[in-house]
This record gives sequence, C-alpha cells and structure tokens, in this order.
Amino acid sequence: MKSLSKSAILVFVQLLLFTELFGQKPDLQRINPTNWWVGMKNPNLQILLYGNNIAAQQLTLQPYAGVKIKKTNKVENPNYLFVDLEIAKTTKAGKLAFTLGTGADALKIDYELKSRTAKPQAVTQADVVYLIMPDRFSNGDETNDKFDNMVDNNSDRKNPWLRHGGDLQGIINHLDYIKELGATSIWLTPVVENNQPVTNEGGTMRSAYHGYGFTDHYNVDKRLGGNEAYLKLIKVAHEKGIKVIQDAVYNHVGINHWFLRDMPSKDWLNRWDSYTNTSYKDQPIFDIHASEYDKKVTSNGWFVPFLPDLNQKNPFLANFLIQHALWTIEYFDIDAWRIDTYIYNDMEFMNRCNKAILDEHPTMLIFGESAVGTVVSQSYFTKNNFNIPFKCNLPSSCDFQVQSAINTALNEKFGWSEGVNRLYQVIAQDMVYQNPERLVPFVENHDSDRYFSVIGEDFNKYKMGLTWLYTLRGIPQMYYGTEILMKNFKNPTDAEVRKDFPGGWAGDKENKFVASGRNDKENEAFEWNKKLLNYRKTSEAITQGKMKQFLPFDGIYVYFRYTDKQRVMVVSNSNTTEKEISTKNFAEILKTSQSAKNIMTGETLNDIKNIKVPPMTALILEIN
Amino acid sequence: MKSLSKSAILVFVQLLLFTELFGQKPDLQRINPTNWWVGMKNPNLQILLYGNNIAAQQLTLQPYAGVKIKKTNKVENPNYLFVDLEIAKTTKAGKLAFTLGTGADALKIDYELKSRTAKPQAVTQADVVYLIMPDRFSNGDETNDKFDNMVDNNSDRKNPWLRHGGDLQGIINHLDYIKELGATSIWLTPVVENNQPVTNEGGTMRSAYHGYGFTDHYNVDKRLGGNEAYLKLIKVAHEKGIKVIQDAVYNHVGINHWFLRDMPSKDWLNRWDSYTNTSYKDQPIFDIHASEYDKKVTSNGWFVPFLPDLNQKNPFLANFLIQHALWTIEYFDIDAWRIDTYIYNDMEFMNRCNKAILDEHPTMLIFGESAVGTVVSQSYFTKNNFNIPFKCNLPSSCDFQVQSAINTALNEKFGWSEGVNRLYQVIAQDMVYQNPERLVPFVENHDSDRYFSVIGEDFNKYKMGLTWLYTLRGIPQMYYGTEILMKNFKNPTDAEVRKDFPGGWAGDKENKFVASGRNDKENEAFEWNKKLLNYRKTSEAITQGKMKQFLPFDGIYVYFRYTDKQRVMVVSNSNTTEKEISTKNFAEILKTSQSAKNIMTGETLNDIKNIKVPPMTALILEIN
Repeated sequence: MKSLSKSAILVFVQLLLFTELFGQKPDLQRINPTNWWVGMKNPNLQILLYGNNIAAQQLTLQPYAGVKIKKTNKVENPNYLFVDLEIAKTTKAGKLAFTLGTGADALKIDYELKSRTAKPQAVTQADVVYLIMPDRFSNGDETNDKFDNMVDNNSDRKNPWLRHGGDLQGIINHLDYIKELGATSIWLTPVVENNQPVTNEGGTMRSAYHGYGFTDHYNVDKRLGGNEAYLKLIKVAHEKGIKVIQDAVYNHVGINHWFLRDMPSKDWLNRWDSYTNTSYKDQPIFDIHASEYDKKVTSNGWFVPFLPDLNQKNPFLANFLIQHALWTIEYFDIDAWRIDTYIYNDMEFMNRCNKAILDEHPTMLIFGESAVGTVVSQSYFTKNNFNIPFKCNLPSSCDFQVQSAINTALNEKFGWSEGVNRLYQVIAQDMVYQNPERLVPFVENHDSDRYFSVIGEDFNKYKMGLTWLYTLRGIPQMYYGTEILMKNFKNPTDAEVRKDFPGGWAGDKENKFVASGRNDKENEAFEWNKKLLNYRKTSEAITQGKMKQFLPFDGIYVYFRYTDKQRVMVVSNSNTTEKEISTKNFAEILKTSQSAKNIMTGETLNDIKNIKVPPMTALILEIN
Repeated sequence: MKSLSKSAILVFVQLLLFTELFGQKPDLQRINPTNWWVGMKNPNLQILLYGNNIAAQQLTLQPYAGVKIKKTNKVENPNYLFVDLEIAKTTKAGKLAFTLGTGADALKIDYELKSRTAKPQAVTQADVVYLIMPDRFSNGDETNDKFDNMVDNNSDRKNPWLRHGGDLQGIINHLDYIKELGATSIWLTPVVENNQPVTNEGGTMRSAYHGYGFTDHYNVDKRLGGNEAYLKLIKVAHEKGIKVIQDAVYNHVGINHWFLRDMPSKDWLNRWDSYTNTSYKDQPIFDIHASEYDKKVTSNGWFVPFLPDLNQKNPFLANFLIQHALWTIEYFDIDAWRIDTYIYNDMEFMNRCNKAILDEHPTMLIFGESAVGTVVSQSYFTKNNFNIPFKCNLPSSCDFQVQSAINTALNEKFGWSEGVNRLYQVIAQDMVYQNPERLVPFVENHDSDRYFSVIGEDFNKYKMGLTWLYTLRGIPQMYYGTEILMKNFKNPTDAEVRKDFPGGWAGDKENKFVASGRNDKENEAFEWNKKLLNYRKTSEAITQGKMKQFLPFDGIYVYFRYTDKQRVMVVSNSNTTEKEISTKNFAEILKTSQSAKNIMTGETLNDIKNIKVPPMTALILEIN
C-alpha cells in the first residue's frame, strides 16, 4: 500500500512538471552577464539564467561559428541554470540564438557577443586620484533623486543619513573643476544598484547612499542615472583626459539583492547558526598561529547584518562575481579597479578574480582596501616579497600606513619614532612590497575623519602633509573637498565626513566649485593644490622617478624624487621655528648643483649649500 | 748628483734593515689565535703574528703531515704577518714548529693543534636564559677586584659607574641558585678583557664594567678571573646541566685594544674626517630608498667615541674576528652565541661569520641584538621569509618586539590595537621569520628599564607578563634579579638597572640568594618563578609544541601551546575585574575535554565549559 501511494504521488508530481514544462512559455527573468564579447583571452563564459523552474527546460544553441555549449549546470534551486559556453578566438561578433524549451512554447533568446572596444588606461604614479561619493557631490539631475518603486524612496538633504540626490550627471558637470584642480582620475564609491531598505543602525535610520550593498550587479543605480549616465560620464571623462576607477565589492551584497530572495543554493552565502559579525580583524588571515575559528569569523562573518556575506568558494557564485568584473570593465571602459574590504574576502577567490582581470588587462591597476595597522599586514594583502605559501597577486593597495603616519606625524613632536620619523619609517619598510610605487597613499577617505580637522585646521600642516602625499612614491588619492578644507570628525557618524559639496545642488547658498564662491582661505587651499598637482603632472621625477630619503634629524625630513634628468627635493621642517639646514650630507644626489627653484613660489635659490626652511613648511625644490 | 744621493740613502736604509733582520732575534709579541684544532670542517687558518718589523722575517714550517703554509701576507704595517695555513682533514693533533727568521737568531715557535673536545649543546625552546652582568652579580674572588697594571685600577661599590668586583667565581658560587630557580642557561655580558680607561660620559666618569670594549680577544678579563675561571665556570655549569651563552662583539673594540696602538693598516677601522657617531638607526640598512650616506653612518659611524668601529671589509680583520669566534667556542666549550649591536655590523661580514660558526656547529643558537622598533626590521636581521636580495643567515634574534609589547600591554587599557592586543599582534606577524620558535623574547635586559618598575610594581601584572614570557613561542630570557623584583628606571643612567645582586658580596646586609634573606614578596616572586620554570622544563607542549592563539576579546587573551600529547592553555584576563569566559570558541583544540589542571595552584577544574579568571591574572591550565 505504501509503495502504491508513493507511485501515485510521483505520477501527480510528474503531471505538475509536465504542465510546468509544456503548459506555458519558459519564464526567463534574467540573464547575467547581460552580454559578452568576442576576442576575450579566456574563451569560457558561464551564463546565469533565472526564471521559474528554468532548470527543467532544455537549452539549445543555433549553430554559431566558434561557439558551443560545453555544459549546462543545475543547482539546488531549479530556478537557475548555469550554462558553460566556449567561445573560440576566431568567433565573430553577433547574436547567439538560444532556444529555451521545446515546441510551440519554446523561448527564443538573443545573446549579444560584441566586439571589444574598451581601452583601459593604466593608472600610474603619474596620476592623482579624486575620490567622490556620488550621492554627496553634486545633483545634476533632479528627476532621478528618488523613485517610488524602490524600497527606499527617500531623498532628503536635511537628513545626513538619507540620500541627498547627488548623481553621475553632477559629476559630469564638474569634470572641468576636477581637471582644473589637477586630479587625473576619479574613483567613485560604488555606483551599482543599491535597492536597499533604510536600515536601523543603533537607533539611526540610514539609507544605503554609500553604495556598498549591491542589489543588481548589472545595473547602475537609477538614482545615480543608471548605466546610460555612467557610460556618458566615462566617455566625457576620457575625452577630458580623466580616468575612471570602479569601486568593486565582492565580499557581500545588499540584503535586498535579487538573487538572495531565491538563492541558487544554500551555500550561496556564508551562514552561521546565529548571526555572526566579522571581527574586522586581519591577523587571523596571515597569523601562522591563528585558530581556524578566528579565520572563519574574519572571512565568513558578516560585515553588517544588512550586507550578507557571499560564499566565494561556491564556483557558480565565484564565476558570477569574476564575470561581472570583466563585464564592467569591458562595458563601461573602466581604467582601474578598487576592491572593497579586501581582507574579508576568500583569498584564493581573490587571486582567481585578480588573475582573470589581469589576463585581459595586464597593466590594470587593481588596488584593495585593507584597513590594517601594520606594514606586514598591508603587504600580505598585495603583491609582496614574502616567501610564504600564499602568494597574493593583487597589484596594489590603499596605503593606510602612509595615511596613519601623515595624520599622526603632523600632530606629534619629533622623536625617535615620532613626528616625521613615523612617515620616514613607513616608507623605509617598502622592501616588503613588490611595487611600492603602485601603492595608493591618502590622507583621508570616506571612512576617516577629515584630514583638516585631524590636524587642528592648521593650514601649514595641511600643506606639509599634502606635499608629502603628492610627492612621495605612489599614486596619491584625495577625497572630494580636501582641496577646499572640508572638515569634521566621524562624530556622531560617518555622515559628518560625507557632507554635500557646497554648490553641488541648485540653489545652494555657496558654490565652492568656483573661486567667487570660496572664501580666501579656501581659495588659497584650492590654488595651492592646483599649482602643485599641475606641476606634478609635468614632473618626470615625481611621476616616473625613484625616491631617496634621508634620515630625519632635528625635526627635518628630506627626500628626493629623481630620474637621470630631474631631481625634486622635498625639505620638510616640522618644527615651530625656522631652521637653516646644511645640504652637505645630500651630496650623493645634489652632486655639484648649487641652485634650485622653489616650484611653489617660483623663487630661485642661488646657493643651496644651506637652505632656510620656515616653520612647519615643506619646500619643494627642483634642483638645477 | 740627485740620483747618487738617492742611492746613498737606499744603501743606508738597507743597512738599517740588515741590522733589524739579522742583528737581533725576531721580536714576536703575539700569535692569534693562540692555538687551533685539527678536525675543523674548514681546513683554512690565518695566523696573525705581531712583533717589531716581523714582516721582514722569513717564516718556515718544519714538515708536519697535513699542514702547509699556503701564503704569508704582509700588510701596510711591517709589524704584522698574516700566515695562511691549510690543515688537511687527516692531520693529527700536535705542535707545529715554525721558525721565524734565519740563522742563529732565528726564533722557534711552537703552535699547538689540539683535538676538538668541545660539545656545544643546542639552546632551544626547552631552555630559559638567565642574563648576568658579571661585575654586578657576585664577587667570588676578592683578590682579582683590581690590578695596578691595568689602566682602570678602580673598584668601588659605592660608585655606580665604577667596577664593583663581581666575577666568574661569584657566578660559579650561585649556579645552584640559578638551577633551583629553573633557568637552564646563562648569558653573561662580555667576559673578554676590557683594559679600558675610565671614560667621561657627559661629565660622569665610567668604567668599562659592562664588558663591550674588548682590548685583547684571547684573554678573559683577569678581574673576572681570566681564562681559567671561565673554563671552570663552564665546566661546573655543564656538570649542573646549565648551558653557557657567550656575548660576542664584532662591531667595535675598546679604544685601548692592543692592535689599535699599532694598527695593521689604516683601513683597520672605519674612519671619518671628523668624529662621526652611528645614528643608531636601523632603517638605512634595509630601506630600498635609503641614502648611501645614511647607510654609512649607521654601519661605519662609531658606537661611542671610546669604542672604535672595526672595518669588517678588511679581509684580515674579518678573519681575525671569525677565527676568534670559532676559537672561543672550541676553547671554552660555548653552547650558544649572542651578537652585540647586530645592525651596525657589515651584513656581508656577519653572514660569513655566522656561516663559519654554523659550518662547524650546525645546530648552534646564534642570536643578534637588533634593538629595533618594528617586526619588519627585526626580521630583516635574522633568517626571514623575505624574498629580497640580501638573505640574512642569522638563526635568531633577541625579540625586542615582544619585550615592547609585554611592557606596553600591561600598562594599557584593552583596545583595538592596545593592551593584550599588542602582544597578540606581534605574535600574529611571525610569518616573517623562518624560525619564530628560536627567537629570544624577554621583558628586561641590562639596557632597559627594570620590568617591575615599568609595570608600576604591580605583582599581578608581574606574574601575567612573565607567564607570557615563559609560555609563548621562543626561548625566554630573564635578567638577573627579575625573580626577586629588582627595580629601577635608567635614570640617571644604565647603572640604575645594573645594581649589585644583594648577597653577592661578602658582608652584604641582605642575601637574596637564600629564602631567609628575601622578604615575603621577594620569596613569593622567587617561588612563583621557580614553580613555573620547573614546570616548564617538564612540559612537552611548551618546550617542543606549537602555538595557537585566539583573537583577544574584552581584555581576554587566550593561547595554547600543544603537541599531540599535551595541551597547555594560557588564559589572561587583563581587566581589573573577574571575568567568566566561555570556551566554546576554542573547541578546535579543546575537543571533548572537560577538565583541566591549574599548574600553579594544583587545583583541578572539573568543568571548563566556562572558566572564571581573576582580575589581571593569567591562568596556566593543562588540559586533561
């Protein structure tokens, strides 16, 4: 009896399936990637098809020279199908014609294989990066501030934690400003759709204006202007000689991501018996004495409750993320790639992902956010000189060590390890990196206290620290507003250091994008940055040269950037009194030179045997 | 006319030389090394002969099976002759018979080739090092306190900066004390002759009681008892199971060294146009951006004016230093080798020197003093995992990073990087070392503030910090008096932290070598150290095991030492209140264990699901 009733149930299920399969047109809701390209170095592509019970459908491909279906993969959830294609080198651009299902209800699917047109430009030491939080920079299109069909339909500039309406058109409108300033590339906090709910963080309702909770990888958030605005921004930026850096997030997605509502498999996310946050600690990843438990918490713990942690060991998810990176670069013509919360990712996955990008774009700058406190740790998470089993292949890293050193040095009296010695000591450890010149130093970003506030709004310190940033080895990164003395501490929240750029909104009382809207001090700051950054562009020594630093003494820190043709000497006096220094000990680089030009004042120093340096000042001297 | 007078002068000079050579017996004042051995791995030996115009003499060797003179080398100063010998593997022990000069005035020189008898014992994690400053520990022989024929003939215990009369017999007298305490090896600050003048340091007259200014490499200072007392000390120590570590100084010698009064060549020392001190800075040695000038100042600048800096690039000097190291180990039967001021030496020379020792004694612990502030720097100066051009071959290093971390951690509130996190973070960077288990951590030494003073004479902190020292990976090093709470800051000078051990001198009012001479707190400290160190000896987990550490949380720091057979758990509560911790997150090592033994109290914990830890306490639990 038992077996009979089982059979009956089976028949019933099969009938249901029959109805599902043949009774209606296949329900295809998504294809990711949304297109692909011929001529990729990697011939493999894995297309995700999503739709109700789609795994039960048969997929066929109309013959297309060079393209074949290698395999169709089913997963736990029958609403997904992962299709492995092989695209031969010789394949021509065009449209693949798939058929999903059979018979009259079969669904025809066109899938475009484009010709590659993207021409990513290398971001190098010759560049200066300008970091923008799009929601907070400028509102160029008031029609896209909010949408009733998005879960968070707020836009309210009076509330620091909600969206303010800034968008990509706002950035387009101010590319000339950025160009005038002398920055050569822009890094936007993520632009991918964040159709996230307003969340409650410690009693404060916050929107996902920061952009780090993706909900659909293949759409730029329409409140920023969507894919079209991003394409336009990049096109205009490139025309103006400005490169574009994409902010990538692999570790997590927004809790409202479409694929989380109906996950491909249980192991799509890193799951815990009860909610477990990451420890935010880097050490368990590289510590040879670390516990498995701590490693797991760092890597698989969730960043915050509303940003579920992706299980990058799942091969379909891994492919999804990697292909999205390749797609983004190709589709939008991205020049460089910044990776969020690098240390919480699965390191083997990250190496695969980096390799996939570098295989297609060997000179691309890819740099990670590893917000760590030691040189050893920072170097572990980039291409380093450690002879250890795990070999990180990430070309570069945000240089948190330089950030910390500059911010601390400026507030400290000179000592054995204090004051300018901090910066000297960080740079002195560069042997741990394979490419220290590709690091991305900064003095502030969207997650830090504002630099100008940290240094007590001291304009001399401001200039000295930025002189270091712009002339040290590496690719300096500014943060929007650095140049107009924007300030604040992260108190009570991050929103304090993510204020709207004044003038970015129609009707703003002040417009600091133009000289007439800036006060004297702001104009002095802007002009100072502009002068130095535009000089920087022309300086072979800074943009291509080596660095030579001398031991700080008596609060004085001297270093050179140099090539065979040019020597730039940076002499910093961190004291509160003027100092006259002898240059005798720098003979190995000064050689017989006797004069120099102060590149900020235009003044010529006709005798550089001794150099007078005003208090709290860094002189930038081009040696004759 | 001119040429005639020149010829006349030449004839005159030749007559003088003839008188010099044949008119008197060769004036041989020194031979170094004073003897050698057969059966060394390296067949080469370079003997230094010193005497008036000795280079003009002919040297011959009476036939001796296996031994030949390969070359005799003359240098700038004719009072030196460097003789290269080759000693074949098959050579038998005996006396080489050299003849210096010819004819009736020729000098016969016997030179002994001994059989090797030294059996250095490996110093490993199973050991605990007890550092002694011989002049300040105990005066075992009052007849050798001072000598009128030495340039400094002072001995005055009332003056902290003069010699106090401590000696090797004093150490011999207290080996049982050290053994009772549980230390297994002694490291003495240098014992080699320091026939140095009293120097004026900033207005204070100081003797060379510290021992770091050698004046004759081949004699132990007679105020310590000379070579005989050192031989005796080592023999007795070995009989008692105590190993002996020699303190080696290559970077400099005392300004009164015999060879400086009549140097072999001008390049025997690193010379400067005007006196130049080392910067004491490590960075220029490894900084890829360093200036040549700064490198030279660090390496070739003098340590202090009365310790001239040796030019280790001079091949004869290099051989002299290397052979002295080999001679010392062989002659005295030294077990391990500590190298002073490691970073100021010539790194290529140090590698040659280390290799020479390791070729003869492959398992010997050689560790350097690199008093530096970062893990990167400390690891550069030992066998590390950096893939960089310079490969340091030094097996180990004093662990200044652990010293700094423990001393700071105990005085700090727990924070993201503060308190016990400091220690955790230092250990977490061990991947930079090839052999972190061979590092020599410590909490104080002869150059530092006394640990007990640094931690505010807090006995709970004292025990917690020493628990870490004795149970972490590595070979812990104590400093005489650690166990009886000796205190002081280096104010006004180092002498404050180098006080005489009470009871080391006849007639001392207090004798803290015995329980009856110690007060209750000192006895508590002594007994606590004794108990832990003697337990340590028996613990396979601590002496041979691995380490596993867990992320500190809430001021709690937990780590394990373990082998397949034993697990020792150290649970530190750095808070000022008792904490009860759950052990659930340590399951990967606790497995199904339910009970443990507190090794200091003997108490059994029958349920270790939760463990109560008193304030500022480290529990040492052997897991059942």
